[in-house]
Amino acid sequence: MSEKTILLDHGSGGLASQKLISDLFLKHLDNPILRSLEDSAILENQPGRLAFTTDSYVVDPIFFPGGDIGKLAVHGTINDLAMRGAKPLCLSLGLILEEGFSLNDLELIIVSISKACNEADVPVVTGDTKVVPRGKGDKIFINTSGIGFVATDISISSQHAKEGDKVILSGTMGDHGITIMTRQAGISVQGNLQSDTMPLHRLVEKLLKELPRDVHTLRDPTRGGVASTLNEIAENSGLCIELSDEALPVRPEVAAACELLGLEPLYLANEGKCLAIVSPEKAEQALEIMHGTPEGADAVIIGTLTATGSSRVIINTPVGGTRVVSPLHGEPLPRIC
Amino acid sequence: MSEKTILLDHGSGGLASQKLISDLFLKHLDNPILRSLEDSAILENQPGRLAFTTDSYVVDPIFFPGGDIGKLAVHGTINDLAMRGAKPLCLSLGLILEEGFSLNDLELIIVSISKACNEADVPVVTGDTKVVPRGKGDKIFINTSGIGFVATDISISSQHAKEGDKVILSGTMGDHGITIMTRQAGISVQGNLQSDTMPLHRLVEKLLKELPRDVHTLRDPTRGGVASTLNEIAENSGLCIELSDEALPVRPEVAAACELLGLEPLYLANEGKCLAIVSPEKAEQALEIMHGTPEGADAVIIGTLTATGSSRVIINTPVGGTRVVSPLHGEPLPRIC
Repeated sequence: MSEKTILLDHGSGGLASQKLISDLFLKHLDNPILRSLEDSAILENQPGRLAFTTDSYVVDPIFFPGGDIGKLAVHGTINDLAMRGAKPLCLSLGLILEEGFSLNDLELIIVSISKACNEADVPVVTGDTKVVPRGKGDKIFINTSGIGFVATDISISSQHAKEGDKVILSGTMGDHGITIMTRQAGISVQGNLQSDTMPLHRLVEKLLKELPRDVHTLRDPTRGGVASTLNEIAENSGLCIELSDEALPVRPEVAAACELLGLEPLYLANEGKCLAIVSPEKAEQALEIMHGTPEGADAVIIGTLTATGSSRVIINTPVGGTRVVSPLHGEPLPRIC
Repeated sequence: MSEKTILLDHGSGGLASQKLISDLFLKHLDNPILRSLEDSAILENQPGRLAFTTDSYVVDPIFFPGGDIGKLAVHGTINDLAMRGAKPLCLSLGLILEEGFSLNDLELIIVSISKACNEADVPVVTGDTKVVPRGKGDKIFINTSGIGFVATDISISSQHAKEGDKVILSGTMGDHGITIMTRQAGISVQGNLQSDTMPLHRLVEKLLKELPRDVHTLRDPTRGGVASTLNEIAENSGLCIELSDEALPVRPEVAAACELLGLEPLYLANEGKCLAIVSPEKAEQALEIMHGTPEGADAVIIGTLTATGSSRVIINTPVGGTRVVSPLHGEPLPRIC
């Protein structure tokens, strides 16, 4: 018997679309707001400023060790809200499906989205599904947009980084990127490579509850990795970011795979890590708070913001040298997220 | 000289991505919130409940008479907000580009988005761009999500339709759908077929200012057309919607093209029309308000909600007969929006 697949009719707006919504989406993602199935979701307002973000996910393969495209889409958008100090309220879910895509795989992804949303306590409240003809897409692309609220005493921005601030990385580098890249290349490596995809809003909430004024910047180093994100922070703050080579945390199996593929972990995507720029007086306290969370158990201080030359990132090597870490340039790493 | 095209590197999160953002997106869509280029946009809160919606656009062709995929994406999401009585505040813009897509065409689309946003006074405040390899997408797919605010005295829902209410259609049927379908089929027809893509938030604002309690339901009949949307309203309200055959407005060139292709205008997508379900006492006033706007100049009352048999749509024909209008079923009309 042939496997059930997505048909063009599932995107027509007619009965087949409705059946997909009720039999699959509402079955797994049901909540009172989504259930209304109107043109927009209506939600009660919350105190604070609004945070709004969007991300499309085109990762290939769609299932990978540690996660799948659905889980990634939920975590990624939650993290983009958390990086401005926002408490995430809800997500939208936009699917672009290729004709012929397995309905079974679609259900696995929707179940994964449901699980990620429940664990993070952030519901999908509105959605949309389009179907493109075979060969005009690739299985499934997902857009998640999200809304959150920022308390009035919080103001997190890459422009707020200050001279003397410490750079904390919440865990190891490159786990997501290397997992996807080895799968794409069909290379099997020793050790347990898996994506670090993880929601960071609870870690951020704890950090900002204790240190509302001393956490100046939060960023999640996804595409382009820690190197590109730090370069953006250097650019926005006009400062130099000096990293300590020994402090940069990389799991041994990630380091080994990077060596094999000639890659630099600093440029690999992370999906469950954040960079926090914190005032020097409170950096140790911030580190302790992170160490008290499952998300930040491996957090380390990796560097300092200085006025030594402006808007660049350098690494101080153990032998007393320095090298400049440029942003990612000319290395296409397609469909990492 | 070969035309400049999208490269995989444009989606890497590195320098090429940043250049695309600054040289193209910020050039045309610039505003203080978007310009910050942080992980989320931060906006001042507004009074009222929140409305949140998402839609992906995969229309083929991407340029068509009366519009393009960018204009459609702006109008469609604004209209989904307006259909709940919300005043649109802002949009997100998620692009999925195919490697090799013309940078010139991309710029035309971004310029069109900019123009549509300016005319509607609803800015893009956050965005994301992904690139997929050649043959894994189709030129450009766009997701626009949107946030709006609903005044506390407004409650618009397809569940609020009541027995005796009148059904008003804000203009002619099928203009968008037939324009796309004749282009897809490569058929040239007489007369000036063009998409009706248009933002409806100002029409809705005028309507609700005068009649905050008497407009019960608003819906824009996009995919699946007036027939499918009315069936959803009938389903949600438990009532019968009786349409008058003579009242259904169709432009002569649309009717002619439909006849040629064997299509029924009731099932064709509209992108600048709304259905308003209004209390019978105020239906004429609502019609007058619509007639006073450019968007609703051709508005007509097309039917009535009755308790004659439940949850279905029927047409009363001039010779005294009736026929049932079922929701769209089994007719794949891919990539209409």
